[in-house]
Amino acid sequence: RTLRIGLIPGDGIGKEVIPAGRRVLEALPAYLNLKFDFVDLKAGFETFEQTGAALPDRTVDVLKSDCDGALFGAVSSPTQAVKGYSSPIVALRKKLDLYANVRPVKTVMNAPKPIDMVIVRENTEDLYVKQEKTYDGPDGKVAEAIKRISDRASFRIASMAGDIALRRQKIRDSGASSIHRSPLVTITHKSNVLSQTDGLFREASKRALSDAKYSGVAVEEQIVDSMVYKLFRQPEDYDVIVAPNLYGDILSDGAAALVGSLGLVPSANVGEGFAIGEPCHGSAPDIMGKNIANPIATLRSAALMLEFLDEPAAAAKIYAAVDANLEEGKLLSPDLGGHATTDQVVEDILKRL
Amino acid sequence: RTLRIGLIPGDGIGKEVIPAGRRVLEALPAYLNLKFDFVDLKAGFETFEQTGAALPDRTVDVLKSDCDGALFGAVSSPTQAVKGYSSPIVALRKKLDLYANVRPVKTVMNAPKPIDMVIVRENTEDLYVKQEKTYDGPDGKVAEAIKRISDRASFRIASMAGDIALRRQKIRDSGASSIHRSPLVTITHKSNVLSQTDGLFREASKRALSDAKYSGVAVEEQIVDSMVYKLFRQPEDYDVIVAPNLYGDILSDGAAALVGSLGLVPSANVGEGFAIGEPCHGSAPDIMGKNIANPIATLRSAALMLEFLDEPAAAAKIYAAVDANLEEGKLLSPDLGGHATTDQVVEDILKRL
Ligand SMILES: CC(C)[C@H](C(=O)O)[C@@H](O)C(=O)O
Ligand SMILES: CC(C)[C@H](C(=O)O)[C@@H](O)C(=O)O
Repeated sequence: RTLRIGLIPGDGIGKEVIPAGRRVLEALPAYLNLKFDFVDLKAGFETFEQTGAALPDRTVDVLKSDCDGALFGAVSSPTQAVKGYSSPIVALRKKLDLYANVRPVKTVMNAPKPIDMVIVRENTEDLYVKQEKTYDGPDGKVAEAIKRISDRASFRIASMAGDIALRRQKIRDSGASSIHRSPLVTITHKSNVLSQTDGLFREASKRALSDAKYSGVAVEEQIVDSMVYKLFRQPEDYDVIVAPNLYGDILSDGAAALVGSLGLVPSANVGEGFAIGEPCHGSAPDIMGKNIANPIATLRSAALMLEFLDEPAAAAKIYAAVDANLEEGKLLSPDLGGHATTDQVVEDILKRL
Repeated sequence: RTLRIGLIPGDGIGKEVIPAGRRVLEALPAYLNLKFDFVDLKAGFETFEQTGAALPDRTVDVLKSDCDGALFGAVSSPTQAVKGYSSPIVALRKKLDLYANVRPVKTVMNAPKPIDMVIVRENTEDLYVKQEKTYDGPDGKVAEAIKRISDRASFRIASMAGDIALRRQKIRDSGASSIHRSPLVTITHKSNVLSQTDGLFREASKRALSDAKYSGVAVEEQIVDSMVYKLFRQPEDYDVIVAPNLYGDILSDGAAALVGSLGLVPSANVGEGFAIGEPCHGSAPDIMGKNIANPIATLRSAALMLEFLDEPAAAAKIYAAVDANLEEGKLLSPDLGGHATTDQVVEDILKRL
């Protein structure tokens, strides 16, 4: 099978980590019978400055008509509001209906408290619909934004969370994980304040997860503020956390902090039959061009993309190679306290494929 | 001076910790020349079940016309949406225009990394305006909520953050703190997605903090997801964090997790010349009636209320007594790994006043 993958480095260290992702995909062992065609695509702030569009139509068109998946690096947000600029990844998620943002967070290297959770973030609505307006009030300017929550999007993201909980249980059952636990989905919301919007998210999620196929999955709920508290106090309790877009954004950065570095944490933007792997970190202008960015978040994102493109064996190969690099701990990038360059980390991982 | 203080225990352990707050206020040494008149007031879910109103008019009227400040315990949120019920503390904050929610978080007991920060949360708007509607879309129910941000509220909360940063510097200068740092206000927002609403928060905050009187205060900004990440990775870097309502809610629970227990973390809802002390924890139905709730969050909230009622000496007395109890570490409640009852903790602190 040949997979056609769009490569969208974006800005900053995106340009260093996306090539690393490509190299690792190309180096997958032949017996997996997986070939890749890559197509270079543009998006980001630099693209905006050059072309006036942060997300050129061509990028969307090629992804839609011609690709099975993609890797997205990172984009720089302008520090001042810039007319006409808006985040291309947010737009991409919506245009391709990549309705789930899946963010696994797990410890390696014999952590005393093993953490192994996935945050499943709704990816198309909530405040990310970006419907805002500004008007003059009696005491000066007032701005309003709409937070939109639909039954449909909430139901399908919770179903995805349930499916992921089942899949993780299967992997644990197969003995491929040292962690023992029963599957759990935690629904996160703030329905004590937002009874209609977050109330709808909560009800739709519960309805989705009450399906008989999830009967082996425990379901609980947490108010978002308390979820953040528990995430830090008892992270080992959690398995799959499902949340509306903005809470998911915040929770996944919080979870990333638990495992040492954003440079380790992957994500995938997932729709029907399409997935974009995207490292959780940003464009990190402070370290760009120095060849010290940690490529691991991107490599794991490539693996995650492969999982959602039904290539679990190829994904497992990459995960294992990355874990082996981390467990040995000899060639680590500076964010993990090491001295290795991006290239050295990549080469070490390539050897282990 | 006699201060008239409303006591609103609310539900659950609110009924155990508010009396503790009263006892400590009553026991303040005579040389402080401070007397208290207490008035018992109702609010909460139990009140709602008894009277049909979670926040009876009388409670608001008495606070407005007759009190200098109040202590608020906690309220239980119904687990199912209940018609007519909505959070009384959210309503109180708005009705009394308590525009700032101030949440200091600090380590005690010789922490290896000393954390000493204050989260200054806007308390009247954002999604907490609770303007929601639900309608039938093509694919089922859709709900929308309004996030409202005004220049006025953003400007005044940022000014409050600046004032607090200056006041904290004064306390450090006086030698009353072992921490050495220069004053910093960190503005938290998500203007990379919400360019108008969070953009307005950001601009108004920067304008407020560019006032000459804050020239000694450094100002920086953090996107909320990255703020959560940094909060957990480098909490000792932060001094005063100012945030819109919902982010402030989430960040303060996160910060509480850093210092061991929500049972330690106070807050004050502050308006012009009025303050309500409120522990950050909830009504904790699982431990209610057992006399094991940690009263410290409430005692510190009483002290914080006194600070904003211009009684810093009385506040300092309570803080010092609480710190002494924690530093000795002999009479601690179960959330801190101890075996003391609520009453035992209170009595130990009374002795130290
Ligand atoms: C860059 C930003 C728009 C984005 C988001 O908020 O989704 C980022 O934080 C992420 O989590 O992918
Ligand atoms: C109970 C709830 C409405 C409240 C809030 O969200 O403000 C609580 O979380 C708090 O932080 O005081």
